[in-house]
Amino acid sequence: MSEAAVTLDGWYCLHDFRTVDWTTWKMLPSDEREIAIHEFLSLVEKWNATQERKEGSHALYTIVGQKADFMMMILRPTMDELNQIETEFNKTRLAEFTVPAHSYVSVVELSNYLPAGEDPYQNPQILARLYPTLPKTKYVCFYPMDKKREGNDNWYMLPMEDRKSLMRSHGMIGRTYAGKVKQIITGSVGFDDYEWGVTLFAEDVLQFKKLVYEMRFDEVSARYGEFGSFFVGNILEEERIASFLHV
Amino acid sequence: MSEAAVTLDGWYCLHDFRTVDWTTWKMLPSDEREIAIHEFLSLVEKWNATQERKEGSHALYTIVGQKADFMMMILRPTMDELNQIETEFNKTRLAEFTVPAHSYVSVVELSNYLPAGEDPYQNPQILARLYPTLPKTKYVCFYPMDKKREGNDNWYMLPMEDRKSLMRSHGMIGRTYAGKVKQIITGSVGFDDYEWGVTLFAEDVLQFKKLVYEMRFDEVSARYGEFGSFFVGNILEEERIASFLHV
Amino acid sequence: MSEAAVTLDGWYCLHDFRTVDWTTWKMLPSDEREIAIHEFLSLVEKWNATQERKEGSHALYTIVGQKADFMMMILRPTMDELNQIETEFNKTRLAEFTVPAHSYVSVVELSNYLPAGEDPYQNPQILARLYPTLPKTKYVCFYPMDKKREGNDNWYMLPMEDRKSLMRSHGMIGRTYAGKVKQIITGSVGFDDYEWGVTLFAEDVLQFKKLVYEMRFDEVSARYGEFGSFFVGNILEEERIASFLHV
Amino acid sequence: MSEAAVTLDGWYCLHDFRTVDWTTWKMLPSDEREIAIHEFLSLVEKWNATQERKEGSHALYTIVGQKADFMMMILRPTMDELNQIETEFNKTRLAEFTVPAHSYVSVVELSNYLPAGEDPYQNPQILARLYPTLPKTKYVCFYPMDKKREGNDNWYMLPMEDRKSLMRSHGMIGRTYAGKVKQIITGSVGFDDYEWGVTLFAEDVLQFKKLVYEMRFDEVSARYGEFGSFFVGNILEEERIASFLHV
Amino acid sequence: MSEAAVTLDGWYCLHDFRTVDWTTWKMLPSDEREIAIHEFLSLVEKWNATQERKEGSHALYTIVGQKADFMMMILRPTMDELNQIETEFNKTRLAEFTVPAHSYVSVVELSNYLPAGEDPYQNPQILARLYPTLPKTKYVCFYPMDKKREGNDNWYMLPMEDRKSLMRSHGMIGRTYAGKVKQIITGSVGFDDYEWGVTLFAEDVLQFKKLVYEMRFDEVSARYGEFGSFFVGNILEEERIASFLHV
Repeated sequence: MSEAAVTLDGWYCLHDFRTVDWTTWKMLPSDEREIAIHEFLSLVEKWNATQERKEGSHALYTIVGQKADFMMMILRPTMDELNQIETEFNKTRLAEFTVPAHSYVSVVELSNYLPAGEDPYQNPQILARLYPTLPKTKYVCFYPMDKKREGNDNWYMLPMEDRKSLMRSHGMIGRTYAGKVKQIITGSVGFDDYEWGVTLFAEDVLQFKKLVYEMRFDEVSARYGEFGSFFVGNILEEERIASFLHV
Repeated sequence: MSEAAVTLDGWYCLHDFRTVDWTTWKMLPSDEREIAIHEFLSLVEKWNATQERKEGSHALYTIVGQKADFMMMILRPTMDELNQIETEFNKTRLAEFTVPAHSYVSVVELSNYLPAGEDPYQNPQILARLYPTLPKTKYVCFYPMDKKREGNDNWYMLPMEDRKSLMRSHGMIGRTYAGKVKQIITGSVGFDDYEWGVTLFAEDVLQFKKLVYEMRFDEVSARYGEFGSFFVGNILEEERIASFLHV
Repeated sequence: MSEAAVTLDGWYCLHDFRTVDWTTWKMLPSDEREIAIHEFLSLVEKWNATQERKEGSHALYTIVGQKADFMMMILRPTMDELNQIETEFNKTRLAEFTVPAHSYVSVVELSNYLPAGEDPYQNPQILARLYPTLPKTKYVCFYPMDKKREGNDNWYMLPMEDRKSLMRSHGMIGRTYAGKVKQIITGSVGFDDYEWGVTLFAEDVLQFKKLVYEMRFDEVSARYGEFGSFFVGNILEEERIASFLHV
Repeated sequence: MSEAAVTLDGWYCLHDFRTVDWTTWKMLPSDEREIAIHEFLSLVEKWNATQERKEGSHALYTIVGQKADFMMMILRPTMDELNQIETEFNKTRLAEFTVPAHSYVSVVELSNYLPAGEDPYQNPQILARLYPTLPKTKYVCFYPMDKKREGNDNWYMLPMEDRKSLMRSHGMIGRTYAGKVKQIITGSVGFDDYEWGVTLFAEDVLQFKKLVYEMRFDEVSARYGEFGSFFVGNILEEERIASFLHV
Repeated sequence: MSEAAVTLDGWYCLHDFRTVDWTTWKMLPSDEREIAIHEFLSLVEKWNATQERKEGSHALYTIVGQKADFMMMILRPTMDELNQIETEFNKTRLAEFTVPAHSYVSVVELSNYLPAGEDPYQNPQILARLYPTLPKTKYVCFYPMDKKREGNDNWYMLPMEDRKSLMRSHGMIGRTYAGKVKQIITGSVGFDDYEWGVTLFAEDVLQFKKLVYEMRFDEVSARYGEFGSFFVGNILEEERIASFLHV
């Protein structure tokens, strides 16, 4: 057996994608729509308070294309809170006019392929990455991924040293995007259908394409990467929610 | 032909995942919702009685993410009882407001890859594993799996001795999680689309990720494991059902 | 080109799986439900008469899990009759409250991998297998399957002698289940998405698992078998139909 | 690069599969059903006129199993006409009671794997195959297919001579079914998800299974064939449409 | 790591495929249908103005077969505008009578496999290709594609020189279709599920099939191409919209 990678795990994470049923939403009288929007904004207000207390974080983005209309990404210290938030949203008035489009359950993860040394849980930089306040960049990109286990391309059969060295060169590419793309890796082994979720944040949407494409030529992705659906979106600021939902 | 593994088989098992149709549920008058909840609780009461008589067991969990809202895991001595329970639930008032999300049909299984010796059916520890009372841990994890049969990675073409030795080292990892994760393996060859269902129970949800990830570096999983969808959930205690369904 | 297997073909076969829409079914007034059940029982009565005249056969089973609620397996001398029966059922009142869940179109098949010799169509035992009256066992299991054509595991590139010898040893396993499991193979090349349908009948549902699992270690399945969805069910005797549909 | 096959292309082809929504169809008053049937028969009458003028052809078949209830196969000189016919059907009253089940867009194709020589477009036999009047046989079979491009089994990397010789032996099998099965190959590269559609016509439905199964042992299919869903059906003569739709 | 390809990126692109719900559309009173059509035409009018200002482009095509009824292809300088246009359409009256059928998010892309030299962003021909006004040809073809990463057929592990030389010969084929087929490549790495979208425009629909089929024999496609669904359609001129939607 190959030596297993050890992970550091932070906040639990729910990506919750929804499609708006515009037809029934329009059938609702305008004042009831106002009430529904107001109720949703109160929910977001509660999330803001949690975020200010550093007890979690969240981000709202509209999604381009038919895969979903908007996405709520929620970070919390426990899986229970994610489940409660999801159920609370499901019971709102607005939820009656949305259709679940996709979801992803994971936990913020850092892996020991990073250089070793000190106790990571004492490192404020690492703590900031495990319990992050999500950036409010203009664009978001989300996709799940696996490491391949097919014939001669079996990541999990590689010796730890080889994986470490491959990940190191992979990380190099990421580092050239520092300041342009912020990346949050969440682990989902045992929680959802892929092994990881990748959420990218950027002010220039083209950087997502450049980063992912450049990495695809790197052996870690080229030989060992398996990718699920890609979602790309624009930030949905609280003050834009009402106009987004205005019909 | 390779020597086939021999299995010990216990209670039959149904994993029944449901999504709540919150919109129509909210349209139901409050007193009718009460009646529907009461009827469902009576059903659970009956299941409790069966469990007390040691004639079966069950567990209820809410599920995180959009794959389902809750899961009923039911163990019974016969396949007929599973079919009856499922039909009985389908005829309840509550079922009108749920949508089938996923199900899995299997039977509690122990395999002869375990060390041989005495007659297993005389062993109280083995009987307790074949006819288990499900633990009421805070979290559950369920996923189905196959052993791969692709090119050079064909589990079923391996000699019995090789499979035994691979399973032994695989079991070692499991044993290091004793006290943290309780695992129930159910066989589903001939009953459902994968060969096994794995249900994990833990008080710390992170242990699911740690266990499954560590095992993935073991040859049994790395070369021979094929995994279906993963479901993770929080326990739904009877006294929490009404509040979970409160709208 | 490898020598093609020659088949003996008997009655055409439709496996028709349905889910009951319990919600709308309950909305129907009780007397109209009675009429719908009565109409369906008349249809079954007609099928019984056909079966008594040895002009076909049928079997009704409820299905465990969410894949379907019940299954009608119909054998007839012509494809036209299957099409008529399906359309006749679709036009019944009961059908308004069922949702098509899955179907499979095939023809009872025996292959020449069996020992050669006499003219098979003169053999009463073979005729009984080509035009069988379906057993009324307590349990049924259905799954479709293909023979693999991938890289070095290509069944259709094997010489006839190799396939014959592999099938012979495969048949040996089947024979050890004689008296426990009755198997009906139906060919579906050109008719449906897999190459064969396998329908197993048994009084002990565990025998399905034992048989399919044991066979999986045999080279024919291990290297060359590709399996679709598995369905398992309990017999739905005519006298139990009304209570099954009682709400 | 391997030498590309050159094709002769005839009429454009739409296979349009529909499921009848019997429940809503039955809710329609009987006289409105009559009007809907009459409107559909007028459409078919127009298609008949086109066929008589040799400006296209069509065939109607009911489909066995749940994949669809009936299939309209339409041949026309231009893609535009197919689009118009489809839209015209979609606007009929009957279409309100059907659900799209599957469709396939292609063009009648002959390939240069056939023996070379004269100018094919001067050959009346070839013209008859490119612009065929569809036979009115009792049964139809439709499936789409690809030529494989996997590892060592890559059809498109084979030299033209090898492909020609493989296709020649493949054609031999087809020829032994002359008089029993009529085959229309339509190319769909660039038009739909597979590379070809195969439509078979026969008076004996069993010949579909015999032909497709025998061919599967031939290297072209065994190593290089990838098959989609198979549909099998019974002819729906115009005079049987009303009774098929009678409820 | 192989040297990554560098891309030139132009306007962002949304392919938005819709199915018309003819049944509910017909239920709308004729004057309300007129209003809905008029509202949609106003939207198109706005897009025309944008196109005239060279700040984007668009194309409308009806789609053959059941995959969709029509397709709106939209090019804009920012991802935000695509998201706004999509939401604006979703809020129209017409959208209430359409069902999302498929969408694709990408950006117009040219790659450095083209001969090197001058600064491409100074080249008016290249600028015209990055910010194109879509041709109004009679036919359109759209499909997404990936470069394969399987075993020995791994595009991303090839040295840059090999990829360049393979792409050069691939481009040769394309060039023989100059004047017959106009091709717009859009990159979707990080934006959608495949790596590229290919949109072809032609006056003769058969040229799509000829081009794609010929290319399939070229090593780039034969060994390294993976293709998604193909959509083919007829131009939907503004003046034909009302008659297309007339019921």
